[in-house]
Amino acid sequence: MSQRVSDEAVTKAMGEITSGASSRRHGDTLPHIHKVGSPPKQTLLQEIKYSVAETFFPDRPFDKYKDQTWGRMFLLGLQSLFPILEWGRHYDLKKFRGDLISGLTIASLCIPQDIGYSKLANLDPQYALYASFVAPLVYAVMGSSRDIAIGPVAVVSLLLGTMLTDEISNFKSHEYLRLTFTATFFAGVTQMALGVLRLGFLIDFLSHAAIVGFMAGAAITIGLQQLKGLLGIQNFTKKTDIVSVMRSVFKSAHHGWNWETIVIGLAFLVFLLITKYIAKRNKKLFWVAAISPMISVILSTFFVYITRADKKGVAIVHHVQKGVNPSSAGEIYFSGKYLGPGIRIGVIAGLVALTEAVAIGRTFAAMKDYPLDGNKEMMAMGAMNIVGSLTSAYVATGSFSRSAVNYMAGCKTAVSNIVMSTVVLLTLLLITPLFKYTPNAVIASIIIAAVAGLVDIEAIILLWKIDKFDFVACLGAFFGVIFKSVEIGLLIAVAISFAKILLQVTRPRTTVLGKLPGTTIYRNVQQYPKATQIDGMLIIRVDSAIYFSNSNYIKERILRWLTDEEAQRTANRLSRIEYLTVEMSPVTDIDTSGIHAFEELYKSLQKRKVQLILANPGPIVIEKLHASQLTGIIGENNIFLTVADAVSTFTPKGEGVV
Amino acid sequence: MSQRVSDEAVTKAMGEITSGASSRRHGDTLPHIHKVGSPPKQTLLQEIKYSVAETFFPDRPFDKYKDQTWGRMFLLGLQSLFPILEWGRHYDLKKFRGDLISGLTIASLCIPQDIGYSKLANLDPQYALYASFVAPLVYAVMGSSRDIAIGPVAVVSLLLGTMLTDEISNFKSHEYLRLTFTATFFAGVTQMALGVLRLGFLIDFLSHAAIVGFMAGAAITIGLQQLKGLLGIQNFTKKTDIVSVMRSVFKSAHHGWNWETIVIGLAFLVFLLITKYIAKRNKKLFWVAAISPMISVILSTFFVYITRADKKGVAIVHHVQKGVNPSSAGEIYFSGKYLGPGIRIGVIAGLVALTEAVAIGRTFAAMKDYPLDGNKEMMAMGAMNIVGSLTSAYVATGSFSRSAVNYMAGCKTAVSNIVMSTVVLLTLLLITPLFKYTPNAVIASIIIAAVAGLVDIEAIILLWKIDKFDFVACLGAFFGVIFKSVEIGLLIAVAISFAKILLQVTRPRTTVLGKLPGTTIYRNVQQYPKATQIDGMLIIRVDSAIYFSNSNYIKERILRWLTDEEAQRTANRLSRIEYLTVEMSPVTDIDTSGIHAFEELYKSLQKRKVQLILANPGPIVIEKLHASQLTGIIGENNIFLTVADAVSTFTPKGEGVV
Repeated sequence: MSQRVSDEAVTKAMGEITSGASSRRHGDTLPHIHKVGSPPKQTLLQEIKYSVAETFFPDRPFDKYKDQTWGRMFLLGLQSLFPILEWGRHYDLKKFRGDLISGLTIASLCIPQDIGYSKLANLDPQYALYASFVAPLVYAVMGSSRDIAIGPVAVVSLLLGTMLTDEISNFKSHEYLRLTFTATFFAGVTQMALGVLRLGFLIDFLSHAAIVGFMAGAAITIGLQQLKGLLGIQNFTKKTDIVSVMRSVFKSAHHGWNWETIVIGLAFLVFLLITKYIAKRNKKLFWVAAISPMISVILSTFFVYITRADKKGVAIVHHVQKGVNPSSAGEIYFSGKYLGPGIRIGVIAGLVALTEAVAIGRTFAAMKDYPLDGNKEMMAMGAMNIVGSLTSAYVATGSFSRSAVNYMAGCKTAVSNIVMSTVVLLTLLLITPLFKYTPNAVIASIIIAAVAGLVDIEAIILLWKIDKFDFVACLGAFFGVIFKSVEIGLLIAVAISFAKILLQVTRPRTTVLGKLPGTTIYRNVQQYPKATQIDGMLIIRVDSAIYFSNSNYIKERILRWLTDEEAQRTANRLSRIEYLTVEMSPVTDIDTSGIHAFEELYKSLQKRKVQLILANPGPIVIEKLHASQLTGIIGENNIFLTVADAVSTFTPKGEGVV
Repeated sequence: MSQRVSDEAVTKAMGEITSGASSRRHGDTLPHIHKVGSPPKQTLLQEIKYSVAETFFPDRPFDKYKDQTWGRMFLLGLQSLFPILEWGRHYDLKKFRGDLISGLTIASLCIPQDIGYSKLANLDPQYALYASFVAPLVYAVMGSSRDIAIGPVAVVSLLLGTMLTDEISNFKSHEYLRLTFTATFFAGVTQMALGVLRLGFLIDFLSHAAIVGFMAGAAITIGLQQLKGLLGIQNFTKKTDIVSVMRSVFKSAHHGWNWETIVIGLAFLVFLLITKYIAKRNKKLFWVAAISPMISVILSTFFVYITRADKKGVAIVHHVQKGVNPSSAGEIYFSGKYLGPGIRIGVIAGLVALTEAVAIGRTFAAMKDYPLDGNKEMMAMGAMNIVGSLTSAYVATGSFSRSAVNYMAGCKTAVSNIVMSTVVLLTLLLITPLFKYTPNAVIASIIIAAVAGLVDIEAIILLWKIDKFDFVACLGAFFGVIFKSVEIGLLIAVAISFAKILLQVTRPRTTVLGKLPGTTIYRNVQQYPKATQIDGMLIIRVDSAIYFSNSNYIKERILRWLTDEEAQRTANRLSRIEYLTVEMSPVTDIDTSGIHAFEELYKSLQKRKVQLILANPGPIVIEKLHASQLTGIIGENNIFLTVADAVSTFTPKGEGVV
């Protein structure tokens, strides 16, 4: 009733654009105000251009080059490749103060972590330090994140170690080292290729839930690996699953653990966890947690050196190679039997590293609200790993824990990475011998404290609350990692993510709509129990683009709605359904399979003596309906701008409701 | 203006359900009529049950078992597995008349086709005849299509031949035959597994466009292969790509083709094509085309026998093994080096065969409007190929050309397949020696005439008209097949199909909405140039569920719309955008990544001093927004039932338009 009032008022005012679609049929009923519009026809070239632009250049990277001179374009291009040229010009002392403090803080955190992470990759400590020297420098010049802290990280080190050992079990061999550099090189190539080809969106295919589960599982696996150092176990399993590790731990218990090691390890672990707790309670005291690892290293090293506890069975780091990175350009396998595995491991490690880095970059960019170009980030990551592979470093990426510290210590730009890199360089040149007496147990404690943060229990609870499917995906990846291996966990994570995408595209939702009383608004009858259906008409909304992957399902689902509703209405002695209105607002696109499905739907409905009506087809859909001449078959008069128009045209007698 | 009239009228009438959401903010503006509804909360079990039901049981196969006794349920179960038990009870003589005529017609068509198709698979003719005897019988008992004609088909034969020869190049060897049965067995197992596990929707992932291209390419490849028989070429290439075949043809031209063969072949090809043309012009004369192959075989065989043209170099069929199918149960490889290839080839051939059969089944089911259970069809196909593999047959499926003839000849049920099978049995038992003098050239002509129908030029033109992307996919598969091989073509078809799905889920559309003058309807401003935007507000519709695969893109795309619009409005000296309304009607679902994206969007907008407003979130979305407490952050007052409500609340001063 209300709509009629308004329609009449409007009709008077806007008589000139009134279309006669309905009056042709029911001369006396409400006229339509607007016809379904067809957008200006686009040429094939325009369509392709639009698709390519949206797919590969959603951030419109070339907009800034418009109407510029060649010289200016070259400068902008350089700046785009090396963002330091841009932000460097506005760099000042005040910013440097922030970067210096945060750089020193993350350096103190990264050096002991590096020593531990290198063990996860089955490498000598210096290779992680090399990565912490070269990669941050390259990133500082090319990267666009201001907060990310670059270097080796726990999960990638573990993943790399597992995959490399699967290929070459003797990790003391020179081949193992060469394969490491090969994998690092191809990790860099993969990352750079994704950036250059603007395929960065591919990493979006790993779902958040799967990453949360994978990370938690990897953190626990890494923690379990540290039991070797923490308990001073000699014969430790090379497997990473929880069953093998626990068996290894209990078996060694009979031979006696080294109690001095345990005391040192546990004491510092308690110290580290307490400082972490303090920092969590009071954000201002973040530096307490940030410097505690370095303090632990200094204190424990001094203690062991004084007491010569290493003679009592306390395992120590022993030897860290002194000096700056040697070249490893000649070490990379570009042919031979290790090329294949090198590429495979590199691609996987590169993608995982990228996923972690992009997640970190995005998080902090959102917190400080600055733009972050995903594709440019990938190019920076790729460049730094390619350079790293030529200078004896292994895969580096953004570290969760150190980036958070970097952020809290007040970093302003990537200069904090340069500061950290400089400290690592000085360490390599001058003080590596000092690490000789650092007990492994302390390194293990530091790593346990560091990876504990990767188990994001709150996020897992949130997953449970928001989306049960996501929760299952998370658990799948988690258990895959801890009971089998990081690779299997990763595989499960990817498989679950893809399964979800496939489900999404094959089984879109369809909804029965009803009229909200007193309005001309049509809504889901399940969500709005007050919404009432129209006598003699069934209204269904299709909530997805209609493609080959779902067209058949959509057609059959609509017919099933009709069958079910007919049965129900017959049971309630209501009148027969004569019209089936498909609300097409959410149908953004339709392909040839979709068109066929609608043709078949139309035929089936004809057989059942039900008239098919379309409401609000979008621009692309209406164009394709025209192109396929389906509008002619269905009848132009049966295509309406709104559901309300269709209802008022076909059931004009007070829109009797069910 | 109009909406105000109606709103006021309604408000009076329905005062009791008026919510005060907006009046809390703007005491004097229009009240809302309905709040955004939250559906009744579902338990985890209900959710899972719904998801599983929609994914695997969209056809509700168990509904009929409700409230039945155990005995009745058993009977219904049996009927469900063997549909013949159901339709067989209503079978009568009238139906049999139709089935007999159509069965005889397709038998006359299938026997010469079988002889040719077996050559594509590099097998002796009897193996195709075995398949035409056993498979139709099994299908008649288990299948639910009434029109499909079962037997070996051209494309699957070619695919099988290519893949088998890649494994075992000597196709005269016994291993080749054993591998054929192994592949057939696993093709059946694959098909049955898909049916039993209700994974039938997986074949929907091959897009219609890709299939059209693949089929056309395969038809041309098969046609080219027939040049060997048609021109009487001795040394013919074993490759299937057009370049190799044409080179082979021209090379053999120098050595002289056999003119008698060419005369016979071309004469009958012209005859067959003329009958096909007649049948196409006058549908009632379909039988002319249907029986012409058999007439050609009889005439040409008689001619060769009389003239002994075989002594003049006209190649003949020579020998077709007499007798019914021998058992091949012991021939299947269940271990050894051929097991792996057997499984791989079987899975691929089984899937392609299934795709063809399901497409045919659906087409005819839609034409006669009877229900077709895809999963049940797969079980029937699987069973018939498993039985086939044990009885010396190779992969059978539904044939396009013969099914069409079956339909036009007036088949009523699968009994027509039984009739055909009986004729093939009699052929095997009695008249195979008569095929001895049948010239290969005639078989080649018959196959060329048969596969010509697979090149669906009209469909290809329609693809070009409707969807350019589909057209490219079609071309890709087509050229892949003719220039490389059927396998590569298939791979391209699958890859393109998947690329399309991935694009769909990563790059959904977002649209700027405007108000149609004189209404409260908001529509795409590109489609409706008359639609005007609201002063101080930007309205964007997101046209997809928001998942991890697109959440980041959607967030950034919305922000880009805002940036672009702000620049444009500033240039036109319009007021600042204060409100960003996201129309969520098409957003059927959101996962945790999507929730995060909205949180980040909210934060970014806060920084820009723009208020985020949501319009019409669906039931699942509103539930998840509540669960994640995002409604609290955005503010319940900023979530509206319609865009119009949001507009009237925040820009009440006459809804000034841009």
